[in-house]
Amino acid sequence: MSRRAPKLGRGVALVGAGMSKFGAFADKTSRDLFVDAFNAMTKSMDKAINTEDIDALYVGNYSSDLFEGQGHIAPIMADWVGLVPKPATRVEDACASGGVAIREGIIAIASGIYDIVLVGGTEKMSNLPTEQVTDTLASASDATYEGSCGFTFPGLYAAMATAYMDKYGASVEHLMKVGIKNHNNGALNPKAQFNKTIKDLMNSRIEKAKQKGEQIPDWHDEIDFLRDPRANPVVAWPMRLFDCSPITDGAACILLVAEDLAKNFSDDPIYVVGTGQGSDHALHERDDLTSILSARIAAQEAYKMAGVTPEEIQIAEVHDCFTIAELLAIEDLGFFKHGEAFKATEQGLTARDGLKPINTSGGLKSKGHPVGASGVGQVVEIWHQMRGEAGPRQVPGKDIRLTLTHNVGATGGTCVVHIFQRR
Amino acid sequence: MSRRAPKLGRGVALVGAGMSKFGAFADKTSRDLFVDAFNAMTKSMDKAINTEDIDALYVGNYSSDLFEGQGHIAPIMADWVGLVPKPATRVEDACASGGVAIREGIIAIASGIYDIVLVGGTEKMSNLPTEQVTDTLASASDATYEGSCGFTFPGLYAAMATAYMDKYGASVEHLMKVGIKNHNNGALNPKAQFNKTIKDLMNSRIEKAKQKGEQIPDWHDEIDFLRDPRANPVVAWPMRLFDCSPITDGAACILLVAEDLAKNFSDDPIYVVGTGQGSDHALHERDDLTSILSARIAAQEAYKMAGVTPEEIQIAEVHDCFTIAELLAIEDLGFFKHGEAFKATEQGLTARDGLKPINTSGGLKSKGHPVGASGVGQVVEIWHQMRGEAGPRQVPGKDIRLTLTHNVGATGGTCVVHIFQRR
Repeated sequence: MSRRAPKLGRGVALVGAGMSKFGAFADKTSRDLFVDAFNAMTKSMDKAINTEDIDALYVGNYSSDLFEGQGHIAPIMADWVGLVPKPATRVEDACASGGVAIREGIIAIASGIYDIVLVGGTEKMSNLPTEQVTDTLASASDATYEGSCGFTFPGLYAAMATAYMDKYGASVEHLMKVGIKNHNNGALNPKAQFNKTIKDLMNSRIEKAKQKGEQIPDWHDEIDFLRDPRANPVVAWPMRLFDCSPITDGAACILLVAEDLAKNFSDDPIYVVGTGQGSDHALHERDDLTSILSARIAAQEAYKMAGVTPEEIQIAEVHDCFTIAELLAIEDLGFFKHGEAFKATEQGLTARDGLKPINTSGGLKSKGHPVGASGVGQVVEIWHQMRGEAGPRQVPGKDIRLTLTHNVGATGGTCVVHIFQRR
Repeated sequence: MSRRAPKLGRGVALVGAGMSKFGAFADKTSRDLFVDAFNAMTKSMDKAINTEDIDALYVGNYSSDLFEGQGHIAPIMADWVGLVPKPATRVEDACASGGVAIREGIIAIASGIYDIVLVGGTEKMSNLPTEQVTDTLASASDATYEGSCGFTFPGLYAAMATAYMDKYGASVEHLMKVGIKNHNNGALNPKAQFNKTIKDLMNSRIEKAKQKGEQIPDWHDEIDFLRDPRANPVVAWPMRLFDCSPITDGAACILLVAEDLAKNFSDDPIYVVGTGQGSDHALHERDDLTSILSARIAAQEAYKMAGVTPEEIQIAEVHDCFTIAELLAIEDLGFFKHGEAFKATEQGLTARDGLKPINTSGGLKSKGHPVGASGVGQVVEIWHQMRGEAGPRQVPGKDIRLTLTHNVGATGGTCVVHIFQRR
């Protein structure tokens, strides 16, 4: 592409970030979750923010329409945190809605029209039966050419996984190792939906069998556990239950401000130095299922804008809606060569104490995946890690100055990447 | 509000605009309609555009999710007009989705990140039964506090209409005159869903009665016709059938470029000189139902940015989803004092040959209201009128240099206003 290098007219900084607890909350709507996230965000800030000073709201949401029968949620969210009559805009790009809402916030500040922008994401999914949630999510694929053939997302990602395994020789055990790592991280995240390691889950199943006097399963490690269909049934081979992110209710909020105002709001702001977004054809139209064009495009643009290389990124939150998705992500982002991510994961390079820690929050797999909120939730983790405030899951021995988030919509119809710097 | 005057970092121009036929098309999906609109837009341009030169797509859509079972439509629309892998983002603010998508396009060019942006809107509504369309639209109200009480939009706007009639002494006949005027305009618009005057409709009913040997209705003018419940049944008093915009399938596209590039694409570009957006509380929370806060805020901001007064605006396309909505709009925009719009309409001031022509396209009432596309469709009319290309409905005797569009979401939870100038 002959396109000129993308450049923003004004710098943008991150001065606050917070999220609701992720999980299944029968008594909460998306607006309640949003208020929880907003309050967590204000609590995260070094200096108090007066809501009257916020110029606008962008909110990422996949389908409150289908999940809750509530469209037009942006002004409702604005109202519930006291922002009326400020502009309130919903942005939707499936599971990348949150990340794209952040991009719109960045662009708006860069344009000069706003100085201070609240970006949120919210999704309330658990009130529908599982099959209906699966169908609702499936409408983010190409409903005419994929959904109509019976494809839902576990099946679409299963197709990508088998293509990857066939091309590079990866096994189901390699996929399992992504989930094991992310649960190891999520176990240390009090806001995660599943804050237990897979070993913990295995041991508690063994304990239960003992107590009931049942036959004790022959599990020596997590891989034994995950191979056992009683513990980890196949959803769409090779995707088993523990390869899939859960159905989650949750919200996240961040506050973006013009770079020159950052010190008014934070002693230690984080600067947004790169943003990129791309689109791709629906999965059935692609020649290659083992790499996502929109992700490569988004990453290229973000790296170019930031003037950095993949090697310089210290930690990243990437879109692991399925275990295979994390492998594709860290290859498309240039962290590892194509066909190498599964080996890198096996070698522990993406673990919290590895060379390139990925999804220290627990990722979508363990932290949870309230689809429209996930892209914003990624930045909450980045905020805590970069400020050294991530508690027991703080990445050890690193002064974290450069990070990345990677948020995918559907099978990659959308991808958005952001790069953050602490100066 | 102490907010600084909003200012864009870079000027933006409109260099093309086109729409699909609006109507009910059983054989077309929202992507087909979008392609029709894109082709009409490219045809409207003075110079050819290479799709590879388009940097990004913003698409307004209210709920393809609920109407067609298709979420994540932005990359699909991008794919169908050849824009992959460029960024593609859906913007949703109910019936203001199209107008807000335009605003995001303007902001993005102003930020410097893009030079050339396609903005579209699309909605495919007619495949559901009418009651289900009404319910789908109702989810744009506050589903928890309004929808749950049985309110749908005719009822919500009926509440606004009765409040207005009570406060200012307007009658149902005043409302009817808005519809009569808009049908007079729409009758001259070949792309309108109902391109017939109400007099035409009346006469054809009389003719039919004659042919069938039935009793000939005692209708001497359009008001007689509209007062007769056989011709114009009550939907939610005082809103009758002809006070309500129809269920419409349709799409519209415009091309925005950085001001300094405008002459590369058009011999006669139109400049975007003002944009404003506001939000409001849900209707049940408001003290006053006769004026919409978000509209006043959006108008104020757009006028301030453009440095113009309401008096200087020569023609406007405003959001007449119901007849009462046009009266509120032209008061909130400052064209007429509060409580004066119904008299101005009666005096013909808003007719095509009046002092302040409103909805020369036929408006949502007669042109049709494919909800997420309507805000973009408004700009298509502005484009044609400002370039003197509106054919038989061209506003007579005016050299049109300054125009405005006003697009409302739901009962005003969102409003967005744009001002355009021809130099």
